Amino acid sequence: MRFRSPLSDTIIFTSGNGEIKFEFKLCNLYTTIRYYAKGVMYNMKRINIGLLGAGTVGSGVIKILTENADIISKRLGFELNLKKIYSRSIRSDVKKRVEKLIVDDYKELLEDDIDITVELIGGEEFAKDFVLESIEKKKSVVTANKALLANYGFEIFQKAFSNRVDVGYEASVAGGIPIIKAIKESLSANNILSIRGIVNGTCNYILTKMLEDEKPFEEVLKTAQDEGFAEKDPSFDVDGIDSAHKMAILSSISFGTDIKEQDVYTEGIRDITYMDIKFADDLGYRIKLLGIANTNDKGIDVRVHPAMIKKGDILAKIDGAYNAIKVCCDMAEDTVYIGKGAGSLPTASAVVSDIMDIARNIKHSSHLRIPLMSFPFNYVTKKEIVDINNLKMRYYLRFTVKDSAGMLSKISGVLGEKNISIKSVIQPNKDSQWVPLMVMTHDAYEKDVKEALSIIDKMSIVKDKTLLIRVEDE
Amino acid sequence: MRFRSPLSDTIIFTSGNGEIKFEFKLCNLYTTIRYYAKGVMYNMKRINIGLLGAGTVGSGVIKILTENADIISKRLGFELNLKKIYSRSIRSDVKKRVEKLIVDDYKELLEDDIDITVELIGGEEFAKDFVLESIEKKKSVVTANKALLANYGFEIFQKAFSNRVDVGYEASVAGGIPIIKAIKESLSANNILSIRGIVNGTCNYILTKMLEDEKPFEEVLKTAQDEGFAEKDPSFDVDGIDSAHKMAILSSISFGTDIKEQDVYTEGIRDITYMDIKFADDLGYRIKLLGIANTNDKGIDVRVHPAMIKKGDILAKIDGAYNAIKVCCDMAEDTVYIGKGAGSLPTASAVVSDIMDIARNIKHSSHLRIPLMSFPFNYVTKKEIVDINNLKMRYYLRFTVKDSAGMLSKISGVLGEKNISIKSVIQPNKDSQWVPLMVMTHDAYEKDVKEALSIIDKMSIVKDKTLLIRVEDE
Repeated sequence: MRFRSPLSDTIIFTSGNGEIKFEFKLCNLYTTIRYYAKGVMYNMKRINIGLLGAGTVGSGVIKILTENADIISKRLGFELNLKKIYSRSIRSDVKKRVEKLIVDDYKELLEDDIDITVELIGGEEFAKDFVLESIEKKKSVVTANKALLANYGFEIFQKAFSNRVDVGYEASVAGGIPIIKAIKESLSANNILSIRGIVNGTCNYILTKMLEDEKPFEEVLKTAQDEGFAEKDPSFDVDGIDSAHKMAILSSISFGTDIKEQDVYTEGIRDITYMDIKFADDLGYRIKLLGIANTNDKGIDVRVHPAMIKKGDILAKIDGAYNAIKVCCDMAEDTVYIGKGAGSLPTASAVVSDIMDIARNIKHSSHLRIPLMSFPFNYVTKKEIVDINNLKMRYYLRFTVKDSAGMLSKISGVLGEKNISIKSVIQPNKDSQWVPLMVMTHDAYEKDVKEALSIIDKMSIVKDKTLLIRVEDE
Repeated sequence: MRFRSPLSDTIIFTSGNGEIKFEFKLCNLYTTIRYYAKGVMYNMKRINIGLLGAGTVGSGVIKILTENADIISKRLGFELNLKKIYSRSIRSDVKKRVEKLIVDDYKELLEDDIDITVELIGGEEFAKDFVLESIEKKKSVVTANKALLANYGFEIFQKAFSNRVDVGYEASVAGGIPIIKAIKESLSANNILSIRGIVNGTCNYILTKMLEDEKPFEEVLKTAQDEGFAEKDPSFDVDGIDSAHKMAILSSISFGTDIKEQDVYTEGIRDITYMDIKFADDLGYRIKLLGIANTNDKGIDVRVHPAMIKKGDILAKIDGAYNAIKVCCDMAEDTVYIGKGAGSLPTASAVVSDIMDIARNIKHSSHLRIPLMSFPFNYVTKKEIVDINNLKMRYYLRFTVKDSAGMLSKISGVLGEKNISIKSVIQPNKDSQWVPLMVMTHDAYEKDVKEALSIIDKMSIVKDKTLLIRVEDE
C-alpha cells in the first residue's frame, strides 16, 4: 500500500514489509518517522520476486530459488517468494515447474505486490525500459545485463538513487565470481590502482585449446560451438565486445567514474594463430584476452586486447572456461578472484545473492546502504580516457615476409626510424616463399608502432596485415 | 546519550548517530519507533573508533585510516574518526603520528563516545575480556584474532547477538582476501560443500622455497625467519595451529555449525623433506599445507595437514607467501580467492573494510543485517565431526629402510594385510645402508594405514618414523 497525502506532496505514508513509514519534509531536511514491529509478524513477511526472462540464467535462478529455498530462508531468516515470471519463451521442463507463476504481460511484474524485479531478458532497449519502469515503481532491480550497464548504467543508477531503490549487478561481470562486491565492499578501504582480468570464458577456452591441441583458431572455435562453449554468432565474445562491457563496469566502480563501452579500446582474438601461442610459450609467455584498467594522474587507461603475460603470473595459469580478475590496490596489494565466468547456475548464484542482499536492505530499511556505483554520485566524476596511442609498452610483432636478403634490414630500418628498438628476432621457417618473422620490441609508443606497421605493411616484401600483440609485464 | 526510562526496564530511549530511537515491548513484540533526520546533520556525524593494539596490523590500520581517509569518507559519505588508541607498546614513528590519541587505560576505549572497538592486541584471555566488555557496552567490535574466534567465537557471537551489535572478523582469515564476506554474502544462495585452502603464508613460502632452492626445511625456515616471513618461534605456523584456527572459523560459517580448534585434525610441515617435494614433483604433484573442510551426511570432516595435489590444480600453482582458498558450492561451483594472507597492510585493509561495513550498519540502524555466523543462531547446530581414521584416500609413504633382499616383500606384506594396495614403488637410492623407499597407495582407510605403519615402524629393517602424506585428488 502506498498513500500520497492530499495535504502536501512531500508527505508520504507507506506500508509494506511489516513497516509503516511516515515521511515529510521539514526545514529542508528529509525527515522520517518509521514504525515497525519486529518479531514474528515482521519476519514472516516474504519478499516477492518478479522474474523477467527464463532463459539460461533465468532457469538457473528458478532452480536455485526452488531447490535451495531452505538454505536461503535459513540464512535470511525469512523467505524469498518467486511470485511472477514473464518470458518470451521457456524450456518445457522449466515451464512445468513454474507454470502457475507465468504471466502473459510483463507489466504484471511491475504491480504493487512485487518487491524486487530481476531482469534477465538481455538486449538493451526493452531491458532498459523495464529496469527504469521498475525503478520508477520503487522496486529494486537485479540484472545480469552487462551491455545495458556498460551503456546506460549511469542513467539507471541515478534514477535508482533518486527513487531510493537498489540495483544489484554482481552477475553482470564474471558470473559466479563475486568481483562487484569485492570492489564495492571488501576493498573499500583502498585506492584501486589497476585491474587485469580474463573476463570472457569463451576466448580463454579457445586460446587454451589452441595451445593444448595445436590447432588453428577456426577449428577450435567450431569445436567450442559444438560443445556449447561458444555462441553460433561468436563475435560478441571473440571480438572482445563482451569483455569491453565488463571492463566498463569494473573500471567505473573501481575508479569512481563513468566509463562506457565506447571508452574501452577493444580488440579480439581472431588473428591469433597457433604459431603465435607456441612462440609465446617458448619465450615463457601465455597469450590471453585481457581486460586492463589502470588509473593514474593522466586519466583512465582501459582496454581489451590479446596480451602476452609471463607464465609465472597467476592469470597465465587460468585455463579453459574459467575467468580470473586481479585487482591491485594500494593497501591490500593484489587479490585475485577466480571462478566460472558464465553458465546457468554460477551466474544465477550471483543473481540470487544480489536478491538476498537487497531483501536484507528491504527488511532493515537500509536501501542504498552501499552506493550504487561504489561511490556516492557527488564523487563520481568524468575522468580523462588515456589514448592507447600514448601508451608505452613492449610488443610482439609477427610479419609475413618474403624470405630474401636484406629483408630484415628493411623492416628493422623502419622500426628504428620510429624509435622502436628490437629485443629479439626469430624466423622459425625458411622453407617457403612467404615466411613468418617474429620480433619482440623493447618499450615503444603504440603510436610509433602503428605508424611503423602502416609503412612496413605496404612494402612488397611483406604480405598480410602484421599481427601485433602487447606484452603486459608487471 | 542513552537514557533508560524509569518507568520500565523494557523502554529504552537512545540518541546517537543523528537518530533518536524509542523502543518498548508490546504484546511480546519488540517495537521500535525511530525518528531520524536525514541530510547534512545526519551525515556529518562521524563514527568513533577505539583501537586496542598498535602492533603490526594496528599500525597498518592507523596508516590506512590516516592516509586513505579521503577515499574512505568518499565511499562512506561520512568520516571515520580514530579517536582513542591503547597499546602496550608502539613503534616510535607510529606513536609520533597518533600521540594525542593514545590513552593510558584501555577502559577509555569502552567509554560512551566510542562506536566501534578494534581488537588487534592478540592473545586470548585479555582480548576475550575486552571484546565481551565492548559488546556489553553496546559497541560493535572488529577483530583479526583467529585464536580467539576459533576457541570462543560462538560465545562472543551469542553475546553480540543479544546486545544487538556486530562483530567483524574478515581479517582473522587470510589477511587481505575477502573470504569471510564471500562465504557469508556472495555465496549465500549456495550449499557450501567443501573448502580447500592454503591459509598459512609462512608454510607456503617454506614449501615453495624448498622446491626452488633444493634445500632442507630447517635451512629454509632459518632464511624465512631472517627475511621476516617466519616468527622466531615458528611452531604456531609450521605445526599447522594457525591454519587450524582459520579452518575452524571457515568451516563454522560455511556449514552452520560451531567448529572449535580442537575439532580440527592438525599436522604441520616439519617432517617434509626436499626429497618428498622432489618426488611429488616427478609424479606431477605439489606438496602444500592444506586446510580441508568437507560436509556430507556423516558430518564435518575438517583437517589441516600436508597434502599432495595435482600440479594442474589452481592451489598447486600458488607459490610463496600467498594464500588461496577454493570454495566448492552446489550452484556457483568452484570459486577461488587469492591474495596476501598476512602482512600489516593487507590485513589492515580487511580490518578497515569491516569497520566501514559496521559504520554503514550504524548509519542505517541495520545492525546484524548479516547473521554473525552466516546463519541465525537457531540454525547453528552442533554437527558430528568425522574421525580422520574413517576417511578413505590415497597415501604417499616414505619409509627409511635397510636395503636388503626381501625388504619390500615384508613391507608390502603388512600393507596387504591391512587392505592397502600399492600403486607404485620407487627406491631412488641404493648407495647407503639406510635408503628411502617411497610408496604410493590406492585408496585406503586412514585407520588401516596408521595400523600398518605402527607395525612396519617397529621392524628392524625400518628406521625412523615413516612419513605419510595424504593425496588430495578431486
